[in-house]
Amino acid sequence: MNVYRYEQNPLVTPADIKPHREDFEVIGAFNAGVAKYGDETIMLLRIAERPISKDPKIIKSPIFNPENNELEIIELNLDNSTYDFSDPRTIKKSGEPQSFVYLTSLSYLRIARSKDGHHFTIDERPFIYPSNNLEVYGIEDPRITQIDDTYYIYFSAVSPHGVGESMVSTKDFITVEHHGMIFAPENKDVLIFPEKINEKYYALHRPVPKSVGHPEIWIAESTNLLHWGNHKPLLSLRDGMWDSGRMGGGAVPFKTEKGWLELYHGATLDHRYCMGAVLLDLEDPTRVIARSSQPILEPEAPYETEGFFGNVVFSCGAIVEGNIIKMYYGVADTSMACAELSLEEVLNSLVYI
Amino acid sequence: MNVYRYEQNPLVTPADIKPHREDFEVIGAFNAGVAKYGDETIMLLRIAERPISKDPKIIKSPIFNPENNELEIIELNLDNSTYDFSDPRTIKKSGEPQSFVYLTSLSYLRIARSKDGHHFTIDERPFIYPSNNLEVYGIEDPRITQIDDTYYIYFSAVSPHGVGESMVSTKDFITVEHHGMIFAPENKDVLIFPEKINEKYYALHRPVPKSVGHPEIWIAESTNLLHWGNHKPLLSLRDGMWDSGRMGGGAVPFKTEKGWLELYHGATLDHRYCMGAVLLDLEDPTRVIARSSQPILEPEAPYETEGFFGNVVFSCGAIVEGNIIKMYYGVADTSMACAELSLEEVLNSLVYI
Repeated sequence: MNVYRYEQNPLVTPADIKPHREDFEVIGAFNAGVAKYGDETIMLLRIAERPISKDPKIIKSPIFNPENNELEIIELNLDNSTYDFSDPRTIKKSGEPQSFVYLTSLSYLRIARSKDGHHFTIDERPFIYPSNNLEVYGIEDPRITQIDDTYYIYFSAVSPHGVGESMVSTKDFITVEHHGMIFAPENKDVLIFPEKINEKYYALHRPVPKSVGHPEIWIAESTNLLHWGNHKPLLSLRDGMWDSGRMGGGAVPFKTEKGWLELYHGATLDHRYCMGAVLLDLEDPTRVIARSSQPILEPEAPYETEGFFGNVVFSCGAIVEGNIIKMYYGVADTSMACAELSLEEVLNSLVYI
Repeated sequence: MNVYRYEQNPLVTPADIKPHREDFEVIGAFNAGVAKYGDETIMLLRIAERPISKDPKIIKSPIFNPENNELEIIELNLDNSTYDFSDPRTIKKSGEPQSFVYLTSLSYLRIARSKDGHHFTIDERPFIYPSNNLEVYGIEDPRITQIDDTYYIYFSAVSPHGVGESMVSTKDFITVEHHGMIFAPENKDVLIFPEKINEKYYALHRPVPKSVGHPEIWIAESTNLLHWGNHKPLLSLRDGMWDSGRMGGGAVPFKTEKGWLELYHGATLDHRYCMGAVLLDLEDPTRVIARSSQPILEPEAPYETEGFFGNVVFSCGAIVEGNIIKMYYGVADTSMACAELSLEEVLNSLVYI
């Protein structure tokens, strides 16, 4: 696969972002949803910030309080054996590796704008910030689907109630309307198709079941974008392959002559995240036509292999112009990058089922 | 609480059911959805059957194959230390107590009919049987909501893809129409309200998140009963109380002068299942008005405390006539029973919030 990584990569890094509070530091500007708005390319960045801790033995965890709309700061001592601090992203109870009790940072969404898709200017203020009881640990990994003049923005909403997917919409990237939680916990990596197919909207989603089942890609349908049903498993993990551990949708699916093309992420059990592709039937997107046997992008550049959580390439949005896929992607849970791929080459690389 | 348990309890036991195959035995006839159909009370029983094993060291697990519509039988040796057989209901991988790989029985749905609500006749054949890739481990714990002349029947669909909630409908309890999975994994204990409230249908549901969150009761809305959204947490576990470990909706909510009354189950961490009640606002069922501090029914009778999985009372349906709640309920994951309670007494027992 010929991959043209932009010379400007990483396009945005935490150093480019002014924290939204003086006592906080930015540790991530990554996993951005992407849209064309007028003559601008918009990256809706997931910004991760944490309270500055002057004591290296104290870790501070920020929590949004929906009662008074203020952040509260939990302080934990790294010597406290009640907790497991081994994952840099989460704080777990010792002996309970599957679940977490706190996050090490608070994520919210902020806009970066560009005329050329290479050089971005960051908005001064947050665009979408935690605002209710389902978002007290933050909001993460937005995707943007444009339908007519409305941009639907949906993201993981994280709270002690679980991780689900909530949605807002905007027409101007200034004001937003809130639509509540569209996929109940535990769910992430929702991708809404940009048009109706045979009278129905479709979305990919990624449930995480507890008792039985795996983090795999499902598909659902809707008539109004707010309520979803007829859930069906779509794409399964593959033992021994790059998508053997977990997977989820990536960029908003886009239409090609051969089918709906979805760029999705897969990870191995040792958390190496790559991007691949799957082709879905144009008339019935619940039908898989073809799929990547090898990744179309894997972590190789230093900004992809090293960082807050290394060996991760994770796309939440792409712009397709003719034969060129401009795939924007988060790197190492730290920064944003972009790579161009040939649509034809991606389609030809797929293995038909 | 004055509880009148029927003299005929248990109303239906496994001994009353002829297995659907000669090489199977019935081990459960429980957790029935309930409806009035004509002059009959219908219990839609969850029937659990397992392949007869003549070797006490061999456990046989039935699995529905949707490719050829036949059951396959997995045989496992109880000496095989790869597996953990300590839970009579499930087979787990050793060292992974949260998740299961097989069930010890296959559940499907069968109709019991009664003119007086006390004496039931069991249909000869299954009514709803696993029929697709989301039901290969069986279908469980049905509830029935009547809207006009249509009965919506929804149940846990269990497969290696997860445990979700699927729905069918019938007008005559003979033919059914399938509507697919209405709540994606992991979810159970869905209860659809019997009428629209301010132009929207509502349902209780019980997600089981993996990373963060607990098995608690949520509420969702719909315009068509098929697609659900605007998910909100409704009722939380309470430390030290009868509903401290897990909980879920029970009977279909019914309208009272004071609000929608929902009879729900709660369990402690040591798996003692009781029934309690919660009152929701008539105009806005996302608002909790009052809740049981003590159970309205707890396992006390021998048929409730002893059985396949003892110390369980678990209602999936009730019939309300005037001031009388006839609460049908599964006992010990084995049989069905019924108890009458005074609606007024239940309402007066609730603690207002």
